Amino acid sequence: MKKAVVLLSGGLDSSTCLALAKQKNDVCFALSFSYGQKHSPELIAAKKIAQYFHVDQHEIISLPMGHWGGSALTDPSTPVLDYTGKSEIATTYVPARNTIFLAIALGWAEALKAQSIFIGVSSVDYSGYPDCRPQYIEAFQKLATLATKTGVEANPIMIEAPLLHLSKAETIALGASLGVDYSITISCYRANANGLACGTCDSCELRKRGFKEAGVKDPTLYSAAH
Amino acid sequence: MKKAVVLLSGGLDSSTCLALAKQKNDVCFALSFSYGQKHSPELIAAKKIAQYFHVDQHEIISLPMGHWGGSALTDPSTPVLDYTGKSEIATTYVPARNTIFLAIALGWAEALKAQSIFIGVSSVDYSGYPDCRPQYIEAFQKLATLATKTGVEANPIMIEAPLLHLSKAETIALGASLGVDYSITISCYRANANGLACGTCDSCELRKRGFKEAGVKDPTLYSAAH
Repeated sequence: MKKAVVLLSGGLDSSTCLALAKQKNDVCFALSFSYGQKHSPELIAAKKIAQYFHVDQHEIISLPMGHWGGSALTDPSTPVLDYTGKSEIATTYVPARNTIFLAIALGWAEALKAQSIFIGVSSVDYSGYPDCRPQYIEAFQKLATLATKTGVEANPIMIEAPLLHLSKAETIALGASLGVDYSITISCYRANANGLACGTCDSCELRKRGFKEAGVKDPTLYSAAH
Repeated sequence: MKKAVVLLSGGLDSSTCLALAKQKNDVCFALSFSYGQKHSPELIAAKKIAQYFHVDQHEIISLPMGHWGGSALTDPSTPVLDYTGKSEIATTYVPARNTIFLAIALGWAEALKAQSIFIGVSSVDYSGYPDCRPQYIEAFQKLATLATKTGVEANPIMIEAPLLHLSKAETIALGASLGVDYSITISCYRANANGLACGTCDSCELRKRGFKEAGVKDPTLYSAAH
């Protein structure tokens, strides 16, 4: 029986990743985090997507990262800015976020006897986050193999990052072919309580362009006309 | 200003590690986890030690690892066994525990602008856990450098494991010279509600021998005579 743990934020990438994981595994376990993100409506989207794809279990883990600050995504005094297109690391970077998410996924995966962890990171259309790069995923794979009993027993849990080299348009085309309902996903860093997207943050900009380039109708509901 | 995050379980090793971190830093932040461990009295010890060493902040983070099973330390249906001396990975191994703890410490350290993380792992007198070995710590250092903004900016957070190559006796001798009060530490995997140690689990056995070999009086309170 093939089992996978899938990191599910509720956005476009992780939902596509879940669709892929479902195709390649018998059983999928979704893992989300309530980490103090201002855009917590993404967790409602995550619940809907987990149901949509009939995952076997959906865990939402609370972490106190919001109290620590250090990111525009969690710190009330640091606003989320509009998209700038700069190549530097965006202020929405959250310290060690993917490392924390992957580490917890690794523990759950080993306890579940799952063979893989799916993470929807991309290093193409992204915000310059260091923990979305191929060399980062490679380093985590090495760590996961050394860190665990299954790894030492020559049966390591595999870190699957199938979107790593895909553009947003390619991800959307792939997801559309797999039946992802993007209307229930939320990518916006400033999503309001009704789940409406701002249309101008990094995440909205990359998503909007992706739909346009993929030639797929954008089902996103925006809080203002764009 | 030199700042460090110190992983503090409440046991002998992490308390010695905190004593060392205090010596080498201006400010220390202690980090403990309530992860469903059966021997939760160690957290009371962790609080006492954090106070004893006047740490600037002590965070205790709750994680649902206890629901996952996969370890004698967390699973009610799997007993903690007496020390056997076997070289294989003990049943008290907790899936990905140090990776989860270090990952969360990394996030907190970066938000705090701390320069280092102290972890009290040893690969000498230990239970065969894969995430206590030098190659594991080395792999985590590489990951931490790639994962973070500070790492990318050539100012990585350093993973300090000063006890990695020390025997238990050497750790105790070091801690005694640094003024660690071992009577308030709890290492036992079967510590009872009053904090009394069983005296026969892996952790007790290694600790008892360590005091004997170091020629330091063992201040541990046992639930039965040994």
